[in-house]
Amino acid sequence: MTDVRPATDELSLRAAQLIAAGRALDARGLVPATSGNLSARLSDGRFAVTASGPHKGRLTADDVLAVDGEGRSADGRRASAETGLHLQLYRRLPDVHAVLHPHAPAATVLSRLSGDRVVLEGYELLKALPGIETHDVEVVVPVFDNDQEIPRLAARVEAWMDDHGPPLGYLIRSHGLYTWGANVEAALRHVEAFEFLFECELRLRGVDRP
Amino acid sequence: MTDVRPATDELSLRAAQLIAAGRALDARGLVPATSGNLSARLSDGRFAVTASGPHKGRLTADDVLAVDGEGRSADGRRASAETGLHLQLYRRLPDVHAVLHPHAPAATVLSRLSGDRVVLEGYELLKALPGIETHDVEVVVPVFDNDQEIPRLAARVEAWMDDHGPPLGYLIRSHGLYTWGANVEAALRHVEAFEFLFECELRLRGVDRP
Amino acid sequence: MTDVRPATDELSLRAAQLIAAGRALDARGLVPATSGNLSARLSDGRFAVTASGPHKGRLTADDVLAVDGEGRSADGRRASAETGLHLQLYRRLPDVHAVLHPHAPAATVLSRLSGDRVVLEGYELLKALPGIETHDVEVVVPVFDNDQEIPRLAARVEAWMDDHGPPLGYLIRSHGLYTWGANVEAALRHVEAFEFLFECELRLRGVDRP
Amino acid sequence: MTDVRPATDELSLRAAQLIAAGRALDARGLVPATSGNLSARLSDGRFAVTASGPHKGRLTADDVLAVDGEGRSADGRRASAETGLHLQLYRRLPDVHAVLHPHAPAATVLSRLSGDRVVLEGYELLKALPGIETHDVEVVVPVFDNDQEIPRLAARVEAWMDDHGPPLGYLIRSHGLYTWGANVEAALRHVEAFEFLFECELRLRGVDRP
Repeated sequence: MTDVRPATDELSLRAAQLIAAGRALDARGLVPATSGNLSARLSDGRFAVTASGPHKGRLTADDVLAVDGEGRSADGRRASAETGLHLQLYRRLPDVHAVLHPHAPAATVLSRLSGDRVVLEGYELLKALPGIETHDVEVVVPVFDNDQEIPRLAARVEAWMDDHGPPLGYLIRSHGLYTWGANVEAALRHVEAFEFLFECELRLRGVDRP
Repeated sequence: MTDVRPATDELSLRAAQLIAAGRALDARGLVPATSGNLSARLSDGRFAVTASGPHKGRLTADDVLAVDGEGRSADGRRASAETGLHLQLYRRLPDVHAVLHPHAPAATVLSRLSGDRVVLEGYELLKALPGIETHDVEVVVPVFDNDQEIPRLAARVEAWMDDHGPPLGYLIRSHGLYTWGANVEAALRHVEAFEFLFECELRLRGVDRP
Repeated sequence: MTDVRPATDELSLRAAQLIAAGRALDARGLVPATSGNLSARLSDGRFAVTASGPHKGRLTADDVLAVDGEGRSADGRRASAETGLHLQLYRRLPDVHAVLHPHAPAATVLSRLSGDRVVLEGYELLKALPGIETHDVEVVVPVFDNDQEIPRLAARVEAWMDDHGPPLGYLIRSHGLYTWGANVEAALRHVEAFEFLFECELRLRGVDRP
Repeated sequence: MTDVRPATDELSLRAAQLIAAGRALDARGLVPATSGNLSARLSDGRFAVTASGPHKGRLTADDVLAVDGEGRSADGRRASAETGLHLQLYRRLPDVHAVLHPHAPAATVLSRLSGDRVVLEGYELLKALPGIETHDVEVVVPVFDNDQEIPRLAARVEAWMDDHGPPLGYLIRSHGLYTWGANVEAALRHVEAFEFLFECELRLRGVDRP
């Protein structure tokens, strides 16, 4: 029983952090309608993931499920359809403890205007991303075509990482950003940084043409 | 008397939901000045509709009227001039229990730039709309020319539905969106989805020209 | 003494309304830095006007002065430098009891892109303006060149009204909107309507070019 | 001991002002992720500066350090990496008691589109800046290339001031605005004014091309 109690408490704590992150994202208009999904790694090998359906700006503890490494919840409730994308990241990147997927207009539009990558360069705010110490750098954000077959999409992400190493975030076309971090707060910081950078890129493209 | 009491209570409940929806729309700038109107179906065949005049972000229970199927309130007060558009939807679509009409810049501008329809395709967020299971779809949003003769405008909407079946929402040119759902919460979700998509479309048109 | 007390109470009431209006404008980003000024007519022939200097989103009762028809306060404090523009409106238009001057990016930019007028046509939201019963109308908003000589600028506004009759609002180039109403709430409604329409116009110009 | 107490109290007061300023900036989206830094001059020759790392919209008193004229804190904690830019301003401009560096999309994008300066002219809101009495003026905002070597960047700012006298604010390319004032409130007012003006300039460039 003592095995179970800490995990339960940890789930409550992570759920509270994901609920707060959802509210913060909603206040910036980043999780319209039922979009977005949020997760955190639990120390017992399971993951806290938002359920499919509820508005991510108004989550309750009941809307955060514990799932195993295959995305199954103990009580049979259905986690977000995109849980497989979260699990690919947790499997591949052991230092990642939180994954956030918001749904912003700038990211969505930019992903439609781009080929297989968005390159961010020269921005001071790139230094808010982990491991970036100077603005004088190119950060590549891969853009994957959207796919309702989540295992196939997760495999494409995995293959890209095999070829290029892990990025700091990726875009799914017409869909939005995935980014992550060592904890929920760090992942939320990376969301703020990427969404700022996508907004800048999109505004640049609206005025900077010949 | 027991016939009347439940209906009265239901009106209070629906009014509270419409008041909350108005506040949520206002927080996103979607009901400027006196614009917008909101309604819900009552189980006794009547409808709760916002009155003409008040700001939709600051409604009180007095601002929500019960009207019959002809748009007449028992006490002679005047419901929104556009009540006829709500009633056409309730008559035609028995599963619809709430109709929302916000007034956003993006929807207004996009409707002026478009012909008789806006086609939304490829967006993941389309899946927030009822019956849409994949991004790989075209959702047609008809655009009707504005008309101060509401019965004539309602008849044009009806005729379009005769030809094409019911859409998931429609635009009135230079005026804004009508959308609906099985309850107020669902209708509000559809507003958030459509306004996000219109914002994306409009931003795409600002940068994506040859 | 009974002459004075009601007027004092009326000043407190109008000040409270102007303070609330300032907060509402600030929440929408319409009174940045020290910009904007707000006023209301008092029944004793004086006017409540915001002082020069304070942030209009954080006004206190002390920041609202009572001035006479020449813009002089009894206690020698300095009302907004643009008080003369408010007084021209109150003299000319006896039914106007409140004047608001916000300071929005869209109005500022649009006034720089326009000649001596902005013409708004076809928008349903025009019906939020007094006397407008249909979208099928042209509303002319005159644009006056900015001038630090307020009496000269007020005279140009007066002359325009001699030629064309009173508009529903006017723009000062690179400066912003003046609009008014039968009370503070009505004037605020007109601000919301005009700023929405200017935002739409500006967005149209960003995409609608050949 | 009486020497120390007043300084400690002053630090608490300035920290509270900087915390409030950070919240105000965050509410407008001007300090995303870990960006931005804020400072105030203390009467004992030291400076209150935000620490490196925390989100500037959620600062606590612990996140504001007292540093000496070389940027060293007594307890060895690390002030913002850009403290050297704040100190250059305090050394050069004895009447400056607060310096704010926000991080807005419009400033970032505009700095990438501009050469070595942005010229703001004709805006009424320029009068919110100190010493500006008319809209009929050109305000030059120098744009410096970004540099991770803060002493070198500070020297370039110093050299520009040697040649042109102090500006009212400056931009670092792809990075954002520095501005300042006689106290935190004044500096915040200048941030609001500049960010409004940059937003106007950027929107003008999106529509005003031949």
